[in-house]
Amino acid sequence: MRPRGERQIVVLADGGFDLLEAKTAVGVIRYGIDRVVAVVDQTHAGKHASDVVGIGTDIPIVPTVGDALAIAPTSNTLLLGTAPRGGILPASWRVQIVQAMRAGLDVINGLHAFLNDDDELAPIAAECGVTIWDARRAPDSHRVADTRAHALPATVVLTVGSDCNVGKMSTALEIDAMLRRRGRTSVFVPTGQTGIMIAGWGVSIDEVISDFTAGASEDLVMEAAKTASTSSDIILVEGQGSLVHPGYSGVTLSLIHGSAPDALILCHQSSRTQIRRYTLPIPSLSDLVALHRAVTAPVKAAPVIAISLNTFGMSEEDAQASVGRATAETGLPATDPVRYGPGVLADAIEAFSRARAAS
Amino acid sequence: MRPRGERQIVVLADGGFDLLEAKTAVGVIRYGIDRVVAVVDQTHAGKHASDVVGIGTDIPIVPTVGDALAIAPTSNTLLLGTAPRGGILPASWRVQIVQAMRAGLDVINGLHAFLNDDDELAPIAAECGVTIWDARRAPDSHRVADTRAHALPATVVLTVGSDCNVGKMSTALEIDAMLRRRGRTSVFVPTGQTGIMIAGWGVSIDEVISDFTAGASEDLVMEAAKTASTSSDIILVEGQGSLVHPGYSGVTLSLIHGSAPDALILCHQSSRTQIRRYTLPIPSLSDLVALHRAVTAPVKAAPVIAISLNTFGMSEEDAQASVGRATAETGLPATDPVRYGPGVLADAIEAFSRARAAS
Repeated sequence: MRPRGERQIVVLADGGFDLLEAKTAVGVIRYGIDRVVAVVDQTHAGKHASDVVGIGTDIPIVPTVGDALAIAPTSNTLLLGTAPRGGILPASWRVQIVQAMRAGLDVINGLHAFLNDDDELAPIAAECGVTIWDARRAPDSHRVADTRAHALPATVVLTVGSDCNVGKMSTALEIDAMLRRRGRTSVFVPTGQTGIMIAGWGVSIDEVISDFTAGASEDLVMEAAKTASTSSDIILVEGQGSLVHPGYSGVTLSLIHGSAPDALILCHQSSRTQIRRYTLPIPSLSDLVALHRAVTAPVKAAPVIAISLNTFGMSEEDAQASVGRATAETGLPATDPVRYGPGVLADAIEAFSRARAAS
Repeated sequence: MRPRGERQIVVLADGGFDLLEAKTAVGVIRYGIDRVVAVVDQTHAGKHASDVVGIGTDIPIVPTVGDALAIAPTSNTLLLGTAPRGGILPASWRVQIVQAMRAGLDVINGLHAFLNDDDELAPIAAECGVTIWDARRAPDSHRVADTRAHALPATVVLTVGSDCNVGKMSTALEIDAMLRRRGRTSVFVPTGQTGIMIAGWGVSIDEVISDFTAGASEDLVMEAAKTASTSSDIILVEGQGSLVHPGYSGVTLSLIHGSAPDALILCHQSSRTQIRRYTLPIPSLSDLVALHRAVTAPVKAAPVIAISLNTFGMSEEDAQASVGRATAETGLPATDPVRYGPGVLADAIEAFSRARAAS
C-alpha cells in the first residue's frame, strides 16, 4: 500500500455517488490528503463531482474503471466509496476491481465484506502485486489498555457528542486542517470507517472486542504520537457514539479512557432533542459537560473546552441564536465549524495547549 | 447438553486445583446448581476438595477421568475447571477429554480455545453423540441495544465495582441464593466466564464486539425475565469491570446501559486503594456512588442501594470497622456477604423492590 499523501485515488461509487450514499467518498474528497482523480458511476457519468455533491470541480465522473485509467493514468489506488445495496459485492463491481488490480492499483475497501477473504479477488491481488486494505478489519492485537497514552508531550483532544451523527468526525477534521494551515503539527486520529478511509489509516474501534477497545484506542494515539511528538503539537481524536447512547455508550467510554485526552470538544446537533432512533431525551449541554467531567476525573481528568454545534438545516438567525445559547449555558466558546469555520475551536485548543505547556 | 440441575459434573483441573488457579471450579462447587461428583487432579489425588480449597468435603480428588468414572458412574458432564498454562490444550488433557466423551459425558469448556473448532475433538463429540459447550464463545447475534429491558415487571439489580476482582459475581450469587431461600423468585444473570460455568448459561460480554455489548447484556436480562416475570421477582445481574478501570470501563458501561438495572449494589475490596495492576487511585465510595448516579441518570436512573465489601484477609476488628465506615460515608447499608452473609444486601433489595412495586 502506498504511503499517505502519495495515493491518486479512483473512487468506485457505481450507482450510488450522491450525498446520502457516498458519505465516505465525499469525506475523502473533502478532507482526504490523497488526491481523488476520478469517480466511477454510470448514473452520473459525464458530470463532475461538484455537480452532484457540491465539491470536486476538477474530478470527472466516468462510467467505468477503464475510462478512469484512460483519463488519469497516474492513478494508483481504487477506493470503494459506497456499499453496494444488499451488502454483497455485485459481479459488475468484481469486474471493475479486477481490472483496477490488473492495472496495478491497490484497493481500499470499506465494506463489511473483506476482500482479502475473497476466493477470487485475493489471489488476483497477490498475482498482481497489489495490496487490498480491508479498512473495517479489526486488528489482531488483543491488548488491554495500560495508560500508555496518559502522559504524552502533545495535547490530545477528543471530540465527544450528545449522540451519534452530530459532527464529531467533521469537527475533528475541520480543526485539524485549520491547525495545519496555521503551521501547527496536528494529526487526525480516525476511529471509524469513514475517518479511516479519509485518513488512510486507523481502526474502526466499534468492531473491536469490548475487552480490547480501550487498548485499540490507546494504540491509535500512540501511533499519532510518533508524528505529533512535541508539546506544541496536537492530536485530534475522532469521537464515537455518546456517553448517553443506550447502544454505544460503552464504545464511547472505551475511547475516552483509552485515548486519554487532555481536553474534549463537545459536539451537538442544535435541533436534536432525542437520541436518534430512541425516545430518550438528550441532556442539556451543561449536564453533558458535567457528565464528561465526572467520567474522566477518576482515570485522567479532561475538561470540555469548547462546544461544536451542527446547525444543518437551520436558518442563519436560529443558528446564531443556538451558538449564543450554548456559550451562555456552558460559559464555553462555541461555533458551528462547517457554517462559520473552526477558528473558535482551534483557538480554544491553542490556548489550552499553551497553558498546558506552561504549567 | 443436559438441562441445568441435571448435570453430574467431573471437574478436570489437572495440576491446578487450588484457590488461585481454579476460580471456576471453586465457584461451580460453591454456587453451582449442578452437583460436582469428582475432581481430576494428579497433584492432589487421594484428598477431598475441602482439603485443598476449603469446600466440598464429599468431593473426592482422583488422578484420572477413568478413576472419576469408576467411583462416580452417574457422572454425565466434564467441566474444564482451570486454564492449562500457556493457553494450549496439552496432550494429556486431550486424552482425558476423549475418554470422557467416549463414556458419554458432555463437555463444558471455559478456555479461550474452542473445542468445537478442534479438528480432533469435534468429530469425536459428534461420533459419541455428546455436546461440547464452549462457554466463552460470543453469540452470533449482532444486535444493538434498543432499551427493551427498560420497563420489566421484575426488579433488575446489577452489581458494580470499584475495580475488577472485588466480588461482584460472588455478591450477586450470595444474594440470589438467599432470596431463593426466602422463597422469592430470583434469577442470577451470568455475564462472565466463571458465572456462566456456575449457572450453565450466559454470555461472556467482554468477548462481544463493542458495538453489540450492550445488546448482548439486554438479551441476557430479557432471557432472565422469562423466569423472573412478576413485580415481586428479582433479576440479579453479575457486574463486570469498573467505570473507573482504564481498560474495561467500556464493558462496564455497556453492561450498565444494556441491562438497564433498577438499582445497583456497589462492590469494593476494603483493603484496596489502587486499581489492580495500575497506579490509579480508587475513588472514595461516595464519589463512586455519585459517578454511578451521573452515568445512569440520562439513560435509566438506577441508585446504588447498598455496599458490598470484600474484607478478605482482614482481622475481624478491621472488617467491622470498614463496614461501619462504608455506611457512615454513604448512608447506605453495607456488609461483607461472604463473612457476614448477604442478609443486609438482600434486605435492601427487598425493601427497594417493595417500594418500586408500590409506586
